[in-house]
Amino acid sequence: MNPIHNDTFLRALNREATDYTPVWMMRQAGRYLPEYRESRKTAGSFLQLCKSPSFATEVTMQPLDRYPLLDAAILFSDILTVPDAMGLGLYFEEGEGPKFERTLREEADIQKLVAPDMASLQYVFDAVAEIRKTINGRVPLIGFSGSPWTLATYMVEGKGGTDFLTIKKMAYARPDLLHHILETTAQTVIQYLNAQIAAGAQAVMIFDSWGGALAHDAYIEFSLNYMQKIVAGLTKSNEGRKVPSVVFTKGGALWLEVQAEIGADALGLDWTVDIGSARQRVGDKVALQGNLDPAILLSTPEAIEKEVAKVLKSYGAGNGHVFNLGHGITQWTPPENAAAMLAAVREHSRQYHQ
Amino acid sequence: MNPIHNDTFLRALNREATDYTPVWMMRQAGRYLPEYRESRKTAGSFLQLCKSPSFATEVTMQPLDRYPLLDAAILFSDILTVPDAMGLGLYFEEGEGPKFERTLREEADIQKLVAPDMASLQYVFDAVAEIRKTINGRVPLIGFSGSPWTLATYMVEGKGGTDFLTIKKMAYARPDLLHHILETTAQTVIQYLNAQIAAGAQAVMIFDSWGGALAHDAYIEFSLNYMQKIVAGLTKSNEGRKVPSVVFTKGGALWLEVQAEIGADALGLDWTVDIGSARQRVGDKVALQGNLDPAILLSTPEAIEKEVAKVLKSYGAGNGHVFNLGHGITQWTPPENAAAMLAAVREHSRQYHQ
Repeated sequence: MNPIHNDTFLRALNREATDYTPVWMMRQAGRYLPEYRESRKTAGSFLQLCKSPSFATEVTMQPLDRYPLLDAAILFSDILTVPDAMGLGLYFEEGEGPKFERTLREEADIQKLVAPDMASLQYVFDAVAEIRKTINGRVPLIGFSGSPWTLATYMVEGKGGTDFLTIKKMAYARPDLLHHILETTAQTVIQYLNAQIAAGAQAVMIFDSWGGALAHDAYIEFSLNYMQKIVAGLTKSNEGRKVPSVVFTKGGALWLEVQAEIGADALGLDWTVDIGSARQRVGDKVALQGNLDPAILLSTPEAIEKEVAKVLKSYGAGNGHVFNLGHGITQWTPPENAAAMLAAVREHSRQYHQ
Repeated sequence: MNPIHNDTFLRALNREATDYTPVWMMRQAGRYLPEYRESRKTAGSFLQLCKSPSFATEVTMQPLDRYPLLDAAILFSDILTVPDAMGLGLYFEEGEGPKFERTLREEADIQKLVAPDMASLQYVFDAVAEIRKTINGRVPLIGFSGSPWTLATYMVEGKGGTDFLTIKKMAYARPDLLHHILETTAQTVIQYLNAQIAAGAQAVMIFDSWGGALAHDAYIEFSLNYMQKIVAGLTKSNEGRKVPSVVFTKGGALWLEVQAEIGADALGLDWTVDIGSARQRVGDKVALQGNLDPAILLSTPEAIEKEVAKVLKSYGAGNGHVFNLGHGITQWTPPENAAAMLAAVREHSRQYHQ
């Protein structure tokens, strides 16, 4: 594999010295880019983009080609490839979120759940390898997975955008069944992320998009504990270099102290938390990634610059910060506003790295 | 007016001694009750329930009649009566959330916004008076309003369930326009709550349902500051008794320290925060109200009792706790499970009040 020319992102995750604060954007390959919308039209659908290594490579590269200031690439894929491989039948209806043909609600169905053969996810690993080759060492490539709790919400509810009442009812009335789903999913995710690492992913991120819906104790029992298992099972280094891990619970900033204890190298932050106070709370246990409200990118370059400067100032001097949005970039973002954010991060962050 | 027989709720909000932890349930008059569904069918719609003082009284009383262990009643109404009175045209489509005929997005429309004549909300004050008379001193009656930020989200977005992108774009690109909406709404809410108090409300609650969608600084600027203004403008006592206020930002448990400074007597908590750590964070500045996950009421009486006991134990010994759900009771709740919760609160809380 090619050596990395710009390893600022990896160094920041390891809390090593960098010249500036590295930056990438969650969902940076996405609908706000006209070139992405073109590719998607050609491919036919979002799922076909994910399932074709060459399309996945094409769209992964688009933001890198447009924005020279990006410090990382992220595999173009979807967290729901995993439950799909577990036999639940992922599909998308136009204009709606993801859905599953089958749900896991009945005890008999749940007991039958097993970790899938990784061969059914080979298209993901092929995409990682092809992207890695295409990036050609410019910046590191991030692999990712959903957290077991987040994946289970889709498997039990059958779709997103719910109040999680079905899975929470299971959590409180039949925790044994939910733990079986979560344990099976955690074992699957370990294999899945390690195969991404073997294929060339240089850092991995676990997206716990719905952990924030849980009560404090339930978050630890049903979400955090399984992310801890995954982190413990990850390949720690590859190609002679450490492979750092990032754990991100959206809506989970109340629980940073316990998140900082699970062995991940960095925590993702959504925009609700002041990053300076988050840094105080986690001390030197982890790096932090975040946390501009993506809605800010709908405003003006002047407002964006001001808000970027506030986040950087709040984090303050020193290492261990990867700048990002607090959630995925929205499809309504003018691409030039994303450029304004990236320029502001580079310009305003140098003073904190001297 | 009649004296209150059971003032446990008011005493707890004032952090005075009580024999047990008082309890009520957000949205306790609601669709989970068959008698409510009957009333709604007779009235014709949710809005007609709200706009008729006799129907509002009927449904407010239903949970009190069914559950002798409830320690408070809450006015049956909706937070959107206020933007409706401001001329935005509230309506409901069957099976969907609330919508407005007009939205506030254009500068000219926003500059025209004024506080409405309270006569347009007389039906609410009439309902308060009639409910108060019907309760006949059994328990206190809570009046309420939405927070200016939360009301503004509906006024700008035109409906609920959005990602708040339109209003956030305004917050960052044209904060002057948003502040005009918020200031006008805050002045309206002060008049609205004071008229509820004059009509007989014995405590008031401000629901900031969507404050949790904001970034830390933006929460203070666009939501908390206006709730502080309202609290400062409230009638502090009536009928020779203090009228306590409760402020509840759903998803706002990160910000309890600043919430505790705005002069409210109590803070509402959603279920994401451990109530014991919340108590430590706010000290003796405010009482706390919450915070069982309403999804737990879908499980079993045994699980409900266990989770109720955990919340009570986490709060621990002493005064200043009003038990509640962390959000409104869901329509799928078996009424007997709500009874199980109320019984568990009464049974398990006495030990903490000795």
